[in-house]
Amino acid sequence: MAYNLWYWPGIQGRGEFVRLSMEAGGIEYRDCAREEGAHALIENMATFDRPPYAPPYLELDGHAIAQVANILLFLGDRDHLAPSNMNDRYWLHQVELTIADMVAEVHNVHHPVGSGAYYEDQKEEAARAAKQFREERMPKFLRHFEAAAKSNEGDWLIDHRWCYTDCSLFQLVEGLRYMFPKRMKTLEPDLPKLIGIHDAVAELPGIKAYLDSNRRLAFNEDGIFRHYPELDAA
Amino acid sequence: MAYNLWYWPGIQGRGEFVRLSMEAGGIEYRDCAREEGAHALIENMATFDRPPYAPPYLELDGHAIAQVANILLFLGDRDHLAPSNMNDRYWLHQVELTIADMVAEVHNVHHPVGSGAYYEDQKEEAARAAKQFREERMPKFLRHFEAAAKSNEGDWLIDHRWCYTDCSLFQLVEGLRYMFPKRMKTLEPDLPKLIGIHDAVAELPGIKAYLDSNRRLAFNEDGIFRHYPELDAA
Repeated sequence: MAYNLWYWPGIQGRGEFVRLSMEAGGIEYRDCAREEGAHALIENMATFDRPPYAPPYLELDGHAIAQVANILLFLGDRDHLAPSNMNDRYWLHQVELTIADMVAEVHNVHHPVGSGAYYEDQKEEAARAAKQFREERMPKFLRHFEAAAKSNEGDWLIDHRWCYTDCSLFQLVEGLRYMFPKRMKTLEPDLPKLIGIHDAVAELPGIKAYLDSNRRLAFNEDGIFRHYPELDAA
Repeated sequence: MAYNLWYWPGIQGRGEFVRLSMEAGGIEYRDCAREEGAHALIENMATFDRPPYAPPYLELDGHAIAQVANILLFLGDRDHLAPSNMNDRYWLHQVELTIADMVAEVHNVHHPVGSGAYYEDQKEEAARAAKQFREERMPKFLRHFEAAAKSNEGDWLIDHRWCYTDCSLFQLVEGLRYMFPKRMKTLEPDLPKLIGIHDAVAELPGIKAYLDSNRRLAFNEDGIFRHYPELDAA
């Protein structure tokens, strides 16, 4: 049975982290709000006794499973997108949560003083936030992910096959390249294992097919990773 | 065997969410950096093949388990701080992750443009961030937690006994009362179930003993919840 995935139509956003693992794993899903619109999403979200705070979520047997890392933990267990060994499970989830932390900081770069206000109304603050993010936070996070990748001898974050967290690292690199192309060019030479995971994910048959399909939306300036040239620098 | 908990000494911070569940559950732990200092923490953190990105983490059989929600998921499973039913486990973890999201936004209020810079250097931006947080984000998050609490008929988030996420909701309310006393006074009348959970956690024998002990640090302006009167308003 196909999963029902609910996420805002029109952007990759946080939903993309869920989509990528499902596409890599050949897991069938319906991207409900892309078929039925944002209005249907808002209506659906209000139907659960145990409500999600925000999309994305999976609708399953009348329940909603929300929060990207939680969804991926669930899919990892249920659809075998990760090893079942306990140590490995907590480790992969830990890295996934650190990716989520970085993604939240990415969003904060273009919305530092008001997530409900427009970028145009906080451009000066965003310039300050971006400088600190580029110079301090990006190297710190990315070196951490490089160290995480280095902890495994194989081509993946763990063992000798891909898992959901590899797909999320792929998306993180993709998003950062879109948002900070100059800065990534400076940092990437020191991240060979992380970029290796990115490249290996890009070659997975399910991911190749997805990236070539019209299901993959382009990055844009309504999503999380936004290319504002004034916020980038080498 | 007691757990080794590593977290920055001198603040409640994110470590407090781990401490509270362990204290409530009567789980023995050593608060290592309070005994050995921040220097020992930095040294210890560098010893793992699979590194934590940041404290808090549990050191266990040579592994580190990091990320608050991941630690609590682990303790929930291993030390029975949550139901073992799958639906319930993912639900509680989902709420815990939403608490983590709100805590990250709380930190962003006093450090909107530079988490590595001083508050004093970003006071104007913080004032803007705080206004939006008080007026839009706080009601939205807190109403969500109220709805989550309402989804259970009992006094707790789930079933008829406390779980780790109840302890985290307690700390969230405590922290917000410290940081935004005026704003919380306005909002609390509409949050009876959430405040009920807060009050019930405060009465747990393990929590009562902890709050009365010198192990409970006071909130202060080095932590996540900081009382800057200029950032509060009804």
